[in-house]
Amino acid sequence: MKRLRIGIVGGTGYTGVELLRLLARHPHAELAAITSRKESGLAVAELFPSLRGRVDLAFSAPEAAPLDRCDVVFFATPHGVAMSQARALLHAGVRLIDLAADFRLQDPAEFSRWYGMEHACPELLPEAVYGLVELNREAIAQARIVANPGCYPTTVQLGFAPLLRTAGLVDPSQLVANCVSGVSGAGRKAEVDFLFSEAADNFKAYGVRGHRHGPEINAQLRRIAGVPAGSNAVDCVFVPHLAPMIRGMHSTLYARLTPQGQATDLQQLYETFYAGEPFVDVLPAGSTPQTRTVRGANVLRLAVHKPRADLAMILVVQDNLTKGASGQAVQNMNVMFGLPETAGLDGLAVLP
Amino acid sequence: MKRLRIGIVGGTGYTGVELLRLLARHPHAELAAITSRKESGLAVAELFPSLRGRVDLAFSAPEAAPLDRCDVVFFATPHGVAMSQARALLHAGVRLIDLAADFRLQDPAEFSRWYGMEHACPELLPEAVYGLVELNREAIAQARIVANPGCYPTTVQLGFAPLLRTAGLVDPSQLVANCVSGVSGAGRKAEVDFLFSEAADNFKAYGVRGHRHGPEINAQLRRIAGVPAGSNAVDCVFVPHLAPMIRGMHSTLYARLTPQGQATDLQQLYETFYAGEPFVDVLPAGSTPQTRTVRGANVLRLAVHKPRADLAMILVVQDNLTKGASGQAVQNMNVMFGLPETAGLDGLAVLP
Amino acid sequence: MKRLRIGIVGGTGYTGVELLRLLARHPHAELAAITSRKESGLAVAELFPSLRGRVDLAFSAPEAAPLDRCDVVFFATPHGVAMSQARALLHAGVRLIDLAADFRLQDPAEFSRWYGMEHACPELLPEAVYGLVELNREAIAQARIVANPGCYPTTVQLGFAPLLRTAGLVDPSQLVANCVSGVSGAGRKAEVDFLFSEAADNFKAYGVRGHRHGPEINAQLRRIAGVPAGSNAVDCVFVPHLAPMIRGMHSTLYARLTPQGQATDLQQLYETFYAGEPFVDVLPAGSTPQTRTVRGANVLRLAVHKPRADLAMILVVQDNLTKGASGQAVQNMNVMFGLPETAGLDGLAVLP
Amino acid sequence: MKRLRIGIVGGTGYTGVELLRLLARHPHAELAAITSRKESGLAVAELFPSLRGRVDLAFSAPEAAPLDRCDVVFFATPHGVAMSQARALLHAGVRLIDLAADFRLQDPAEFSRWYGMEHACPELLPEAVYGLVELNREAIAQARIVANPGCYPTTVQLGFAPLLRTAGLVDPSQLVANCVSGVSGAGRKAEVDFLFSEAADNFKAYGVRGHRHGPEINAQLRRIAGVPAGSNAVDCVFVPHLAPMIRGMHSTLYARLTPQGQATDLQQLYETFYAGEPFVDVLPAGSTPQTRTVRGANVLRLAVHKPRADLAMILVVQDNLTKGASGQAVQNMNVMFGLPETAGLDGLAVLP
Repeated sequence: MKRLRIGIVGGTGYTGVELLRLLARHPHAELAAITSRKESGLAVAELFPSLRGRVDLAFSAPEAAPLDRCDVVFFATPHGVAMSQARALLHAGVRLIDLAADFRLQDPAEFSRWYGMEHACPELLPEAVYGLVELNREAIAQARIVANPGCYPTTVQLGFAPLLRTAGLVDPSQLVANCVSGVSGAGRKAEVDFLFSEAADNFKAYGVRGHRHGPEINAQLRRIAGVPAGSNAVDCVFVPHLAPMIRGMHSTLYARLTPQGQATDLQQLYETFYAGEPFVDVLPAGSTPQTRTVRGANVLRLAVHKPRADLAMILVVQDNLTKGASGQAVQNMNVMFGLPETAGLDGLAVLP
Repeated sequence: MKRLRIGIVGGTGYTGVELLRLLARHPHAELAAITSRKESGLAVAELFPSLRGRVDLAFSAPEAAPLDRCDVVFFATPHGVAMSQARALLHAGVRLIDLAADFRLQDPAEFSRWYGMEHACPELLPEAVYGLVELNREAIAQARIVANPGCYPTTVQLGFAPLLRTAGLVDPSQLVANCVSGVSGAGRKAEVDFLFSEAADNFKAYGVRGHRHGPEINAQLRRIAGVPAGSNAVDCVFVPHLAPMIRGMHSTLYARLTPQGQATDLQQLYETFYAGEPFVDVLPAGSTPQTRTVRGANVLRLAVHKPRADLAMILVVQDNLTKGASGQAVQNMNVMFGLPETAGLDGLAVLP
Repeated sequence: MKRLRIGIVGGTGYTGVELLRLLARHPHAELAAITSRKESGLAVAELFPSLRGRVDLAFSAPEAAPLDRCDVVFFATPHGVAMSQARALLHAGVRLIDLAADFRLQDPAEFSRWYGMEHACPELLPEAVYGLVELNREAIAQARIVANPGCYPTTVQLGFAPLLRTAGLVDPSQLVANCVSGVSGAGRKAEVDFLFSEAADNFKAYGVRGHRHGPEINAQLRRIAGVPAGSNAVDCVFVPHLAPMIRGMHSTLYARLTPQGQATDLQQLYETFYAGEPFVDVLPAGSTPQTRTVRGANVLRLAVHKPRADLAMILVVQDNLTKGASGQAVQNMNVMFGLPETAGLDGLAVLP
Repeated sequence: MKRLRIGIVGGTGYTGVELLRLLARHPHAELAAITSRKESGLAVAELFPSLRGRVDLAFSAPEAAPLDRCDVVFFATPHGVAMSQARALLHAGVRLIDLAADFRLQDPAEFSRWYGMEHACPELLPEAVYGLVELNREAIAQARIVANPGCYPTTVQLGFAPLLRTAGLVDPSQLVANCVSGVSGAGRKAEVDFLFSEAADNFKAYGVRGHRHGPEINAQLRRIAGVPAGSNAVDCVFVPHLAPMIRGMHSTLYARLTPQGQATDLQQLYETFYAGEPFVDVLPAGSTPQTRTVRGANVLRLAVHKPRADLAMILVVQDNLTKGASGQAVQNMNVMFGLPETAGLDGLAVLP
């Protein structure tokens, strides 16, 4: 079988090195180009010695890279880069997967409000597909542009979906997502807040006045619940926190159960909903998932609880860089190109 | 001024060494005895080299220690020890502060249910005072027995108190306390779950089927709200989580605001409520407290938010071993003996 | 190709779960049995949820496990177990790889001195092969019993080997190995010293009066240098330290250079010595290896320095559970059975 | 007693906040001014909420601060600042303590070589006193300028001093200092290498081609040994490593013993040498000091070992920000102004 030719734009950050880790042993992928203006000419394995002997590419300047001869290009870049190159790549017949937010919000005005820039190709937004495979598999298979979901939104959507897809189980206007991320979610940027001496042995909430993943979460939860965009019939308060770990994301989700919801077997509901999914693991009743059980693996594990008769609580864990970013991106690629969905994603979690 | 003669029962655990750290430089305290059956004869500073040159005591066997000649005895023991010695100490005129749970629940049946043992002196429960100074200062000043609060309950009570003391601001039957603790909260016990290789780089909920701090929280919240014991007019779902840090506790509290609550200036409410308190710090509006800002200090910091018009969110941090345990115990001692409340508690947080 | 039938004795510890992680996706391995007296009947994936969906075995009682029908049995046990079962397994035609120390020291008296027990099968010691593939590949291919090296000794031997194999480069009686291990090296045992609250944010030396890896190191360095067993012509002072990380081992090795050694191109020496080795990576001159570049990977990376004209300093890193234990064990298995040496060991390091 | 008026230049970094933590409860100190060009106008407690309620100052612009009316000014700045202001402050009768390197090296050429700038006031170098109190107490008491030692050099000098002060015990040309620092030693600078996701769960050597503390160490060791400046009769190879902890420094020092040294009772030598020192703690024979036993305390603990008959090994720990920086600076101030040496430095280590 012919290997897919892969391009990566960006790639000096953590989602970049995670993509490389996964693609370097993907049986159907061939790394054709990786770009970085700043590191142009540098061997990738010099920047990330974990790749020595396994990735021979050097970073190329963006304009010099043969991206238009790739089958698919991943954007592991800051927000705003993918949309600036999307038209040209599509024109060259290249499909693209954006790990940033350029294609996550369908409403260009909302995009501008949260990301502080005009959308460069609003005409492409309608065809962009939101890349949460478990909820959107068919559309992804046909997509030319896939918006890889944000890490937090992945946990919140997969955690709430079974409760929201069946109407009448919960009050969708009173959802709370109390979420915790490891520090790698902040990326490989030199900022004081994410220094070891600031973030270690510490815990805090952040972004409480509004985090960019909030509108993404609510827009998608509305789609899942089948209510119109912008309706406040669905409203999820999203509170992110930072924990002193490198990788890992833990979301504690709360939903008020209606009488119908109280009468429903939630464990059964979730097990049925995710039956056959290779990358969503519904834990046995009573479990408490730990982030380390998914470290480096493209798996999301969740457990369903009822701490009070009228309250559902869903505990969800994933590795923010794998199922929450690069692993999910590879999963999207597999679906887009008709490969086995688990190809290249069979690594087990590194525990301890 | 004569120094108080202090006894410590237990003292080989983390609350014990934290008591010693604080009392070793308390201007009005003199360590008279510290007991441990297992470590009897061992110099305290040999077990905890951080105390070398500052604490000269050795552990004595419980029966050999001159506890009855102390002014006050701290119990830094497992549950069940303080109640077994309370009568004799009171009879000898010694006041006692229990850092365990023996005197936290007024209902002996509830104590038995959660701690798996009969209460040894139920007749003393009515006179035991719950040692949350900010809410209970006068009673503590007169008390012979003080029940030092649990770490989680301290954050939950001080976080919710201003909302509950004024009737009608929130729906008290729908409270949620999403709490996170550092690992030292589990004590200095050899258990696999708290090994470095299990707890580092990991995050999880635990105790979701029922944690002993749940009934303590709800019993005290009812008192604060002025509803009868056992009434479910007040109900707080309490969800503890474990984060990979040594010290530190962060509680994210949610309360549904009534129309009256929505019309209230919550920032003002909290600032007024805690005005003049030396150990409660209401942060400016918009803040997100960090656990490291209280590391080793007897301070609880909190911030008030309204992430949705009808939802109050209180973020609370403390050091679980200091304001959450041993520092609060010293604060109680100061109040009980008419000392300046801040005596021996002037250490600033160690940051970074 | 027929898959090897694999048995694992022990397997509830960290080397056990690491073996399972690697073997679960080894293309030529089939897990046939895993034993644990204590956890008999428990699904392996219940103890280690990281294996859910990938390892279906349950622990069996040792006597019930079909170990004698395996091709190879790994002992991921405390010291003393492998030697008690070796005769029977060999008799049944099973080859064995011991991750503990039973077959590491050729001298049964020395074994008794350091491990506090009589050797159970001293007659088998002569045929046991020390499983450091890079130095011993041919013998391993023929072996029925392989003693998987200790984690520290792996770094020290591979670090010093090029300097010692060529006589006259260094003074072999003045070697120093200043080594640092992550906490997982202490195993999954409930001991206070390895609690998170004891080991986090802390650094210390330990075992300075004598660590079991000392005699192993010196015995093997003598073999490498070609001096008689017990000669003090080779003497390496070995000082282990504990660092607050889960996985990772870093050894800083010092050797006094002779005039001949000072005249030698050490970088060249090392690159030549390890040319073609799939799992030893000699870094470019001037590098400082980081443990995270080998996290979860079966790779040892090293760099050669001369901080003073007469002093060689070798910096060596590995993952103590992978190349330092279970990965190396799988590498041994591959060599023993004529499989590609890298089979099942192609996972890249998880960074960050 | 009149309080000393204190000025701090810089103060937005970790040595700055540590100075503030210590001085805020120093009985004889009054914070008069703290400068930062970048943060001018910002309340100190807004930058460091750990100081809320305890430090009321705001940062002032350097030119606006009343530094010339202070008794003493601390420079918690990058290298090069103190020397630019020294003349003016001395002229105003202010004494100064530089926590950076401007006055650590007596040779301005060597300063230029390592710090990449010309020395601004070479004429003041001869009167600058190296502020290692235990070795230099009398001179410090008279000094107008004190060069606060580097963190690593403090451990290496106090560790080797007893061996070097008595001639003939060790070969001083073969010293090795294998040192490990927590990440806060790198300061509060936004650099990728010190991000949590880079430095956590990782260990590495660094600066192996030459670290600025190397010449400081060797210059001072020569003074201690009484050999001429620049002589290579004393030569210490210094190898720094970075460990994933916030605070803490551990040095493992090696010295080859002469026959006379081998015949000396080293434990006795060290205990005598440091008898009466309030901030140096010689542990009992056989001990292994842990960094956490000095966390936040102005104490250096060390243990003396002989892992081979001809090799002395000294294990030394300190908190790099306290005894290794700001605590030592306060100790210097106390000595300079005739205060009790322990004033303001009685805080015990925070353990766990």
